[in-house]
Amino acid sequence: MAEQEVILFGMCISPFSRRIELALKIKGIQYQYIEEDLSNKSPLLLKYNPVHKKVPVLVHNGKPIAESLVILEYIDETWQNNPILPKDPYSRAIARFWAKFVEEKILETGLKTNKVKGEELEQLKQEVHQNLKLLEKELEGKEFFGGEKIGFLDIVAFVVAHWFQVASEEVMQVEFISEEKFPVLHKWLGKLREIDVVKKCLPPRDKHAAFIKARFEAAKSAPK
Amino acid sequence: MAEQEVILFGMCISPFSRRIELALKIKGIQYQYIEEDLSNKSPLLLKYNPVHKKVPVLVHNGKPIAESLVILEYIDETWQNNPILPKDPYSRAIARFWAKFVEEKILETGLKTNKVKGEELEQLKQEVHQNLKLLEKELEGKEFFGGEKIGFLDIVAFVVAHWFQVASEEVMQVEFISEEKFPVLHKWLGKLREIDVVKKCLPPRDKHAAFIKARFEAAKSAPK
Repeated sequence: MAEQEVILFGMCISPFSRRIELALKIKGIQYQYIEEDLSNKSPLLLKYNPVHKKVPVLVHNGKPIAESLVILEYIDETWQNNPILPKDPYSRAIARFWAKFVEEKILETGLKTNKVKGEELEQLKQEVHQNLKLLEKELEGKEFFGGEKIGFLDIVAFVVAHWFQVASEEVMQVEFISEEKFPVLHKWLGKLREIDVVKKCLPPRDKHAAFIKARFEAAKSAPK
Repeated sequence: MAEQEVILFGMCISPFSRRIELALKIKGIQYQYIEEDLSNKSPLLLKYNPVHKKVPVLVHNGKPIAESLVILEYIDETWQNNPILPKDPYSRAIARFWAKFVEEKILETGLKTNKVKGEELEQLKQEVHQNLKLLEKELEGKEFFGGEKIGFLDIVAFVVAHWFQVASEEVMQVEFISEEKFPVLHKWLGKLREIDVVKKCLPPRDKHAAFIKARFEAAKSAPK
């Protein structure tokens, strides 16, 4: 492939940015990383993602792409080495189905738990628990969601699981994916954290913890 | 391709089901359609979509796929005639980006307008208006989002636009995508409605109107 200019606008703690870094590293793509200060977004970020004004944005030879799942698909279609999505259309559909599930039923539902109290909170916690059980079942008998190696759904789910794990330990003093309740996911999470390319994509724990604490405090006082 | 068994579990009024029918018809795929009664879901639907228990579900040679955008991608990858996604990875990314935008910023935001009142309602209405403006801009200078023929984003956006148009006229007595405010989207919507394959996928107006009225009434009394 001819010379490529690949720039990633990201934010160190953002799980969405981490997804893109992980995919780029798995494929061995050289890229320039630009860390965004989300409280003072750069004119370039606003130019490249005028609709959502969010990270991550991948700029490939001057053309910007936003939304982490969309970027992952783009990367996989553009650089075909070390594929992250399976080849077979049905397996691809299953990976996309569960990626959507992680976004909506783990991430969004999980984030809501910080905005409610009492009975509503208990209900949401139970929902997250049931959803994690479904995800656990999907992983059973496999090394990774992608089979024997990290794939699309591993990338999508890992950053969310890791983020919540840190958030739970730091803010709520509980384990999000405990070994007792979710042995399969727990093992998977531990295994992923030991992989070199994944390690390189994890934000420093202290910075991560400080960010999450600040965010949870801010969310508590924000309107629903 | 060898003999195929294609079954679609849908619901007449569901825009998500209509997306799948539209794609199947564009590709000329023979399929069996099973209308679901959502107040009394069939054991087969629950078997094929145990996670969400929702329509649409496409069952291809015994294998079920759920979630309308996931099904559309599957159809396009499995039957390669009359492609609905563009070939070039960047154009594919753009179509997927806007499809997600339609789901989140038009559909979800639009549905919320029925659950709020006063200032909150005005704010949401303005949001939908701004989001439609962005979509309008994306369509400018093109016949369809897919270029000269109906593509992925046309399928995704049309059913949502049509649904809201009927909802607005029937329940709110206003035009959702008016010619005055959104000339480009208005023209596109009208043009799509005249296409044979699209006409075949539209639910009967009286049934559609009755369903929407019942749904809006139910939503008004439901908790936020």
